[in-house]
Amino acid sequence: MINPAHLEEIKKIVGDDNVKSDKAHLIAYCYDATRERFEPDAVVFPRNEQDVSEVMKLCNEHKIIIVPRGAGSCFTGGALPSHGGIILSLERYMNEILEIDMENMLGRVQPGVINMDFQKAAEEVGLFYPPDPASELYCTLGGNVAENAGGMRAAKYGITKDYVVALRAVLPNGEIITAGKKTIKDVAGYNTAGILIASEGTLAIITEITLKLIPKPKFKQTYMGIFPDVTKAMNAVFKSLAAGANPVAMEFLDALVIDALKQKFPDIELPQDAGGILVGDVDGNSESEVQAQLDTLQKSFKENGSNGFIIAQTQEEAAKLWFARKNASPATMVYGTKKLNEDISVPRSKLPEALEEIYKIGDKYGFKVPCFGHSGDGNIHVNVMVKDKNNEQEMHDGHKAIEEIFQLVVDMGGTLSGEHGIGLSKAPFMNIAFNDAEIELFRSIKKAFDPNNILNPFKMGL
Amino acid sequence: MINPAHLEEIKKIVGDDNVKSDKAHLIAYCYDATRERFEPDAVVFPRNEQDVSEVMKLCNEHKIIIVPRGAGSCFTGGALPSHGGIILSLERYMNEILEIDMENMLGRVQPGVINMDFQKAAEEVGLFYPPDPASELYCTLGGNVAENAGGMRAAKYGITKDYVVALRAVLPNGEIITAGKKTIKDVAGYNTAGILIASEGTLAIITEITLKLIPKPKFKQTYMGIFPDVTKAMNAVFKSLAAGANPVAMEFLDALVIDALKQKFPDIELPQDAGGILVGDVDGNSESEVQAQLDTLQKSFKENGSNGFIIAQTQEEAAKLWFARKNASPATMVYGTKKLNEDISVPRSKLPEALEEIYKIGDKYGFKVPCFGHSGDGNIHVNVMVKDKNNEQEMHDGHKAIEEIFQLVVDMGGTLSGEHGIGLSKAPFMNIAFNDAEIELFRSIKKAFDPNNILNPFKMGL
Repeated sequence: MINPAHLEEIKKIVGDDNVKSDKAHLIAYCYDATRERFEPDAVVFPRNEQDVSEVMKLCNEHKIIIVPRGAGSCFTGGALPSHGGIILSLERYMNEILEIDMENMLGRVQPGVINMDFQKAAEEVGLFYPPDPASELYCTLGGNVAENAGGMRAAKYGITKDYVVALRAVLPNGEIITAGKKTIKDVAGYNTAGILIASEGTLAIITEITLKLIPKPKFKQTYMGIFPDVTKAMNAVFKSLAAGANPVAMEFLDALVIDALKQKFPDIELPQDAGGILVGDVDGNSESEVQAQLDTLQKSFKENGSNGFIIAQTQEEAAKLWFARKNASPATMVYGTKKLNEDISVPRSKLPEALEEIYKIGDKYGFKVPCFGHSGDGNIHVNVMVKDKNNEQEMHDGHKAIEEIFQLVVDMGGTLSGEHGIGLSKAPFMNIAFNDAEIELFRSIKKAFDPNNILNPFKMGL
Repeated sequence: MINPAHLEEIKKIVGDDNVKSDKAHLIAYCYDATRERFEPDAVVFPRNEQDVSEVMKLCNEHKIIIVPRGAGSCFTGGALPSHGGIILSLERYMNEILEIDMENMLGRVQPGVINMDFQKAAEEVGLFYPPDPASELYCTLGGNVAENAGGMRAAKYGITKDYVVALRAVLPNGEIITAGKKTIKDVAGYNTAGILIASEGTLAIITEITLKLIPKPKFKQTYMGIFPDVTKAMNAVFKSLAAGANPVAMEFLDALVIDALKQKFPDIELPQDAGGILVGDVDGNSESEVQAQLDTLQKSFKENGSNGFIIAQTQEEAAKLWFARKNASPATMVYGTKKLNEDISVPRSKLPEALEEIYKIGDKYGFKVPCFGHSGDGNIHVNVMVKDKNNEQEMHDGHKAIEEIFQLVVDMGGTLSGEHGIGLSKAPFMNIAFNDAEIELFRSIKKAFDPNNILNPFKMGL
């Protein structure tokens, strides 16, 4: 428990109203999207970078744990105070879009800005911020940088790290640093921004983010490819991309997800004979460019065994095609009461084999494993469906199945996490993905930034 | 000087023939593109990653300095053994293209592969590796990663860091690590690859690189925009890009460079009234896409005061337009016997003001400062021309002018180096660009990787 005298000192920095330790606040800030719960000792709302710096300095002196938090939408516990300490909540005050620099096509924001608010601000001036995690309506850009958030548009446009131009951050000792400049090229000094991205709030508190924007493509169209089975769909993914297709998104639904959607939404219009679906958008600056993209996709899908290709002619039709993908996650709950949801990623050419092997692991333990997600970039949401979450044996088997899936994925050259990070949830599997030297290096990097181990400690298995 | 017994131990690892300490080798490996000279104690040619690992382990135990070297084309002394020790030369054996993975559009190479050889291997299968530093004919990909090399195509396609998917590397303690996977999304563990890129060979020896490839655009055309003065040209750069132009390259020549070209190449065909030139390529997958790009450029250039726009109709015409830019660097030598060449980078919208102020600094000290370079990404090669390099006062003034230029650039939100790195040459200016906390953090990062400070020490002012 935090020493009450220290809490008083923090109040002097940020103001009485911005330090909360009543039960309501402790509960309100004890969870994230994992649904695990850990109550902090207090919740602190810094008003600005200077507040963050002074609070950090104080906590570093007294070795008080600080856990930074944006919207708390993390799927792996990144913002959970698993070992107590202070939640540093960045969404109350530090949530301003500071600048949309049209001349240099950059946006400068505070960490608490919601992803979609920034997307909209860019669009208002004809620019485009592509990273679109599924939580885009409520997740914050600070969290996006800390987790290196992805999304559906990664196939064409990449992920958060591809848009971070510069950061300001507060180190655990309270010092304020900048990393990167408002320039496209900058090779002076170590690439500190590079290591802060995806560091899950364990190295520094990000206080300002400069993000690259690109011109908004003028035309967009939605397509859907229907395949008789999952393997054919997965082959079509990498073969169409290697053939020159460059879709904004190429999302995937397997047969189990398609069946689940039909059960949950009886009126849904989905092809009867679909054993696998690829759905997404193509975009471009002319209608002919978009049409050329659709032609490439349709031709390549056909060569790889598709039995249908739909192009949306209106926004309503596009919304209908997207409906299935957008509702895939809730639909899978027809198969159980608990979903063990992992976001593995493999080289795209390994997708057919990966899916086949994942289903086999599910069969071995008696689980349905509906899969969907961002096949265009090799990142699949794998859902081990536990029928009865109160059945200890079943839960135990579910976790064993997950572990086998991780081992399979790593053996195929893939990663434990394409988007969600390690946090607490995947920490037990770090030794599957990393050798001792790599984990030791992570510890050394952590120590270089945070010698007293006060900043989001014990995350990532460190 | 290195202990002869240690040299014998190294010979046992890599073989007698792969350790050289004769004068000819020490001289051959004592220079880089800075023309500074520092003789190493020995040159070692590891045959493979295992050799690198064992040599590193030995040197770490005995605290022997190791300086990794690719082609030695660095402009800032990154590969110079300024404090003696061993040159670890990676270009003799570790120079194989291990894989061009067409299905996942990736290339996997050893560090000694020459940039252009990799570009060609990609093109042979219809793929494209965009980063094209001016030294592309001889620089190595290991050096490109260590320095985060740029090039002319950065305006559209980005720089080396945008193509690094995964690395294998040997730490100073001899341990072998991998950083990243052959996947587009990977957020497991710290982004070690992110901090190794641009680390100038001070953190680890890169032994294998996996690089992203993209489909080769089908059409390309070369353009040249003529402007009455430099300021109008610089305004046209950021305004045309903000208007949606997306050229592969937008290179820039100022009035002094244009005059120098006319002096050095009397037959050169350049417009009489050019006070500033923008030249580059546009590309795309259809002729109409390329034409649309040219239209956007021409219109925007005209709105910003251009008095001419040339489109090459043949390859010969394209080569003629490019001739001026490709020969800009040697042409500037008409103005002096010594060129103090810096590669500053500013936010693109600051280019007009930056150039005006740079010329003023030149005037103040009596130097001509011809400028050219990658205006499309804000990265300008600034050349302070010293008339008599044997004149100590003039050389002193030249360095003072450079220092003022650096201060100006940093005040404008720019960086000391867009491409060349810090190395030895720019180390004295680190305190202009970084505060104490930032430099202290760099030192901590260095120590986390290299506690005995054996790997390329004293570079980057560390």
